[in-house]
Amino acid sequence: MIPVLSAEAVIGFLGAGQLARMSAYAAYRMGFRVAVYSGVEREINVPGSEPLEQLAPLQFTGSFDDETSLLNFMSACDVVTLENEFLDGSLLHKIESLSKTPIFPSPDSFLLLETKWLEKETFRKAGIPVTPYEKITSIDELNSFALNNGYPFVLKSSKGGYDGYGNKTIRSADDHAEAFSSLGGASGHELIAEAFIPFEKELAVQVARNRTGAVVYPCCETIQENHICKTVIAPARVDLSIQKKACELALAATEAIDGTGLFAYEFFLTKDGALLLNESAPRPHNSGHYTIEGCACSQFENHIRTVAGLPLGSTEMRAPVAVMENLLGTHNRPAQV
Amino acid sequence: MIPVLSAEAVIGFLGAGQLARMSAYAAYRMGFRVAVYSGVEREINVPGSEPLEQLAPLQFTGSFDDETSLLNFMSACDVVTLENEFLDGSLLHKIESLSKTPIFPSPDSFLLLETKWLEKETFRKAGIPVTPYEKITSIDELNSFALNNGYPFVLKSSKGGYDGYGNKTIRSADDHAEAFSSLGGASGHELIAEAFIPFEKELAVQVARNRTGAVVYPCCETIQENHICKTVIAPARVDLSIQKKACELALAATEAIDGTGLFAYEFFLTKDGALLLNESAPRPHNSGHYTIEGCACSQFENHIRTVAGLPLGSTEMRAPVAVMENLLGTHNRPAQV
Repeated sequence: MIPVLSAEAVIGFLGAGQLARMSAYAAYRMGFRVAVYSGVEREINVPGSEPLEQLAPLQFTGSFDDETSLLNFMSACDVVTLENEFLDGSLLHKIESLSKTPIFPSPDSFLLLETKWLEKETFRKAGIPVTPYEKITSIDELNSFALNNGYPFVLKSSKGGYDGYGNKTIRSADDHAEAFSSLGGASGHELIAEAFIPFEKELAVQVARNRTGAVVYPCCETIQENHICKTVIAPARVDLSIQKKACELALAATEAIDGTGLFAYEFFLTKDGALLLNESAPRPHNSGHYTIEGCACSQFENHIRTVAGLPLGSTEMRAPVAVMENLLGTHNRPAQV
Repeated sequence: MIPVLSAEAVIGFLGAGQLARMSAYAAYRMGFRVAVYSGVEREINVPGSEPLEQLAPLQFTGSFDDETSLLNFMSACDVVTLENEFLDGSLLHKIESLSKTPIFPSPDSFLLLETKWLEKETFRKAGIPVTPYEKITSIDELNSFALNNGYPFVLKSSKGGYDGYGNKTIRSADDHAEAFSSLGGASGHELIAEAFIPFEKELAVQVARNRTGAVVYPCCETIQENHICKTVIAPARVDLSIQKKACELALAATEAIDGTGLFAYEFFLTKDGALLLNESAPRPHNSGHYTIEGCACSQFENHIRTVAGLPLGSTEMRAPVAVMENLLGTHNRPAQV
């Protein structure tokens, strides 16, 4: 059961980065308080300087696997949310049970996405098309994946990678050993191999969902350079039928994990017009920064609305938008002149 | 000389109320830090709960005439601004000189508006039409004002009144002694009498000004009940020539005090079409809350822009607006759905 938070209720963020900061802007405007749990140690009684710490007097620090520190933070919050996926789902489950403070997205949803391999399994079983993939725990499995899918393909850390970190493109059998070892496979770190998809475009959709309903943002187009999103164009310059299909898949994916929160989905649009779900995130996403100026209610306000149990805001666009990501990659957003 | 503040520079607010909070939203979004000086005492190391304190980790408390506490606050800030006019202008001058931290609006500007009597003197001498007024320091002067201006008229605290507090309507000579005494005149509190103006409408205009230039918001109409603003309609439902004249007078008033900051002006539109300046405020004003959704750049963002030395944002309206003040009289603004 999602509580409906009253004004001055405390929303806690696990993580103090730019995405949490931008959600906090919306939380404050709506009258909520904000607490922050940061992994960055600092002196006692000196306010921290992480993006969200700069504007949240209720500050907690500790490692993200320190149960005691986490419970201390939870006890100060009416509800807790995430700003990244680098957390331990089982621990989230435990601290939610012990503290009775709800976490959204729920640990149950989170566990279904916790590793890239589990994420693919979850969505494939829900009938959502994904890229061909395999869990890789040995060089033998890597050889076998190459045999079945050909080159090139991508070997990834199953947990913890972002913006190309934790990824290796495998172009021939000569790359197997080095990639497997450098990504930690030899020391037991879970890896996943994904077939390379020659795509026409990359698309993204954000979804907000709680017990009051679900809203889906317009399908936008993302242009990456070196694995980093450089430009977002909304709505995407593709047929309306494809935009609609991407929005339907994004909503279906959110329903498949019974998600409460703001979720982002990235798709490949293949040359033959098929959509494959590539990645998901259980939080606001840089592909949705455009919604601040571009939509009636931003991904950040809807993030807060989902975790506060409030009705969700309209995702309708005010005007088509193109956003250069290099203006948005920090918490210091350009001012609205 | 107005510094141009860099990201993460600290903007200090003297006062922790809803107007400071709403300016802080803009400051944070632009990448600045915020410090707050609150007159509300609290335990050491317990975050305060005043509206701005809820979102500002850099917190200072003390009385507003405690030079040592104020200087301690000033030393933590790159620039300091105000959210109310209940401060001592001479003390502002002194702490600015001692700390070398600039205050905007400047103490020089502030001193020209510090009491209602000084404010009238300043604007009258600058050629801006104001209601007939006199400083009242005795019952004799009150009698004399009544003789010259007739009944009814208004007797006001020259400093510290707002929303009808510190005001008395005088309807006959029978009211003189009680009103003079109850407003503190007998104990030396400065009072001002103002002639009653039978007005057609009340209008308001906000102006933002710094060394980069000045911008003037549209002339809006305010509807008061029991001295409290209940409704704002923008633009005002009056001839364009009157709207234009009000904007010109507001800009001239700001220039008369060489103001750096966000200023608000309230006018009476008389039945014969004349405009009289009624009140001014050296800060964002409830008549300008509509600029958040109504204008390209809100009074709060332009408040921050003026004190940060930044170019000012467009005051152009997005759409005509009517705002019910009872939705806006707290820091918990209705969310943007």
